[in-house]
Amino acid sequence: MRILVLGGDGYLGWPTAMYLSARNHEVAVFDNFAKRRWELELNAQPLMPIPSLPDRVQAWEEVSGRRMPFFAGDLCEYESVRDVLRELQPDAIVHYGEQPSAPFSMIDQRRCVDTQVNNITGTLNLLWAMRELAPAAHLVKLGTMGEYGTPNIDIEEGYIEIEHHGRKDVLPFPKQPGSFYHLSKVHDSHNITFACKVWKLRSTDLHQGVVYGIATDETEMDERLATSFHYDEVFGTALNRFCVQAIAGVPLTVYGKGGQTRGFLNIRDTLRCVELSILNPPKKGEYRAFNQFTQMFTVLELAETVQREARKLGFRAELNHLPNPRVEAEEHYYNPRHQKLLDLGLEPHMLSEVLVDSMLVGIRDHAHRIRHEVILPKVRWNGGVEAEVKTLASVS
Amino acid sequence: MRILVLGGDGYLGWPTAMYLSARNHEVAVFDNFAKRRWELELNAQPLMPIPSLPDRVQAWEEVSGRRMPFFAGDLCEYESVRDVLRELQPDAIVHYGEQPSAPFSMIDQRRCVDTQVNNITGTLNLLWAMRELAPAAHLVKLGTMGEYGTPNIDIEEGYIEIEHHGRKDVLPFPKQPGSFYHLSKVHDSHNITFACKVWKLRSTDLHQGVVYGIATDETEMDERLATSFHYDEVFGTALNRFCVQAIAGVPLTVYGKGGQTRGFLNIRDTLRCVELSILNPPKKGEYRAFNQFTQMFTVLELAETVQREARKLGFRAELNHLPNPRVEAEEHYYNPRHQKLLDLGLEPHMLSEVLVDSMLVGIRDHAHRIRHEVILPKVRWNGGVEAEVKTLASVS
Repeated sequence: MRILVLGGDGYLGWPTAMYLSARNHEVAVFDNFAKRRWELELNAQPLMPIPSLPDRVQAWEEVSGRRMPFFAGDLCEYESVRDVLRELQPDAIVHYGEQPSAPFSMIDQRRCVDTQVNNITGTLNLLWAMRELAPAAHLVKLGTMGEYGTPNIDIEEGYIEIEHHGRKDVLPFPKQPGSFYHLSKVHDSHNITFACKVWKLRSTDLHQGVVYGIATDETEMDERLATSFHYDEVFGTALNRFCVQAIAGVPLTVYGKGGQTRGFLNIRDTLRCVELSILNPPKKGEYRAFNQFTQMFTVLELAETVQREARKLGFRAELNHLPNPRVEAEEHYYNPRHQKLLDLGLEPHMLSEVLVDSMLVGIRDHAHRIRHEVILPKVRWNGGVEAEVKTLASVS
Repeated sequence: MRILVLGGDGYLGWPTAMYLSARNHEVAVFDNFAKRRWELELNAQPLMPIPSLPDRVQAWEEVSGRRMPFFAGDLCEYESVRDVLRELQPDAIVHYGEQPSAPFSMIDQRRCVDTQVNNITGTLNLLWAMRELAPAAHLVKLGTMGEYGTPNIDIEEGYIEIEHHGRKDVLPFPKQPGSFYHLSKVHDSHNITFACKVWKLRSTDLHQGVVYGIATDETEMDERLATSFHYDEVFGTALNRFCVQAIAGVPLTVYGKGGQTRGFLNIRDTLRCVELSILNPPKKGEYRAFNQFTQMFTVLELAETVQREARKLGFRAELNHLPNPRVEAEEHYYNPRHQKLLDLGLEPHMLSEVLVDSMLVGIRDHAHRIRHEVILPKVRWNGGVEAEVKTLASVS
């Protein structure tokens, strides 16, 4: 199949592009390098140095013998989206091309508006261009489990049957997103649902949990093929951050009580879920949502797991229960379904001691690059932002 | 109270500002005149000529003896929003300042993106500025009943209690909006809900039905105080359009079977609902939604009502069932609650023969200004747009 990966220079976009390329798809990548700019703006570069996209694509061709055309373009520029669809005529479009961080969206008015305008405009442009130029293509959109929030009932996959005053309907599952970033994903979901209805497009909306890990079959083939590994407050995810904190010799930052339960998955499973979605497309006009995670943990459980493995390696790995910078329930019911991808054949990579150990060992090799000043959270959901981020915001 | 009316130059904004001013509130209006530009762009000026905002404000002062400061500013420019909040320190902010048309948002990619970016950015800027400069102010936001769509269960006011697998929660009512415009209002609702939660702002979200009518106590005081009356496809609402069509001697344009049921209200009730919301504010941190309409009709019933009254005046008023340009159910269950504003004291102005007759007579006085070419629908939800609108789009 011809597959276009939007945001193909990112933490998940790049490994996804290689994974699909290695499985004999014709893969092209598209990116506007906004993420690299945001990293510079916030002084939050990834742990390992990452080659430019042209160099990555060339390294991939050397290692795998497969070509991967890349397009430097911006989803917010409509002509740029039309050009790439016209040229490629993709069968599937994997859409990672968005601002991906909740804390980023909470820094200040500008970052909040930029996040929503960027994410919504990009997705709307894509839908309009698909309508005109690729109406049969399958849009595989990366959303987030954070769209649902933590309701006191079981979370279904996208839709829920509601019985009310003796009548029934199947309706979109009510969303209670927890940041302006999560809100942008909810807005996208609504916009895509509507486009599938009125224009008969087809889309899979992957409500993804928190991804951990750094290694995939393809990234391990050559160090130039590594993906970006973030450990800072803004772009780093929980397990990844805890591992770096352990190696850095600073306490693991558990927000509040740490009872927040979330769905997690290995980066390898992200790639497989995207592939399974592509191989099993929805029918014309169908919008479907899959909940994409494999296991649930509390934040505290994750921190304790990292602590155990880090101590085996001789690190102290203290836990530090910080005042929670977010506004969220720290103890709550949480039972989201995640059956549909299993039904399609997903075989999860469960979180293991071996995996955590290998992450810790991998990070230890780059320990000299860890920058302590980006580890502690500075963005507060209720409005306070610490001085350092504010300064960066006003300088940038 | 000090009240700021955003979009104070519009169909509802201007009468609302006068209504509140007449009731001894200190009212200021804010507008960027985008609506007047869109009217020119689409060749869709209102039936009666409308003075500029400075002239309206001056006429209001002459007639009523009350001052009404006005601000020419754009909600999409953050400094402009901060300036007006800092200067006025309003107790309540009535937010009509958005692109208000569903067909406009469906014309093409540019109008769709402009609608969502304009509406979302304006509301986000307002929320950030309120957090900083007016955290105790009450945001009265104009939303729409169209956010809900037409589910097969009763529609509640904003929230619904859901029982699912033996557990219960009260969750946001699932939304199924029917255009990119309606989607922008859903996005706003989600953003405002979140801001109330994390920043302890207070807001009333008025999910308003289709407004009809042109006369309020204040507009009738002087012809310079008239509000804009639209009869074109893009900015005109159903009953208003039918009345103009009857007078123009063209068939009344019923979309499809005309079985689409909607909630309607008299423009006088819009003003009273806004006032009731202001006089009964929610508590700090509360987001509440009121369904703001007084009666339900099918589109066909409305057309037949206009037909009856028009025939009494000697007009033919044929009905023409056009192919529906929208993607929507033409027969469906529809039973939305609308109790909360009644509980606060709303006494509805029901649609009467007298009202329709007076509208028809008023329009007859301006019949020479009716432009036939803007009456028929040209924007198609499923993607086709007729040549004339396309040309306008590329010229503008």
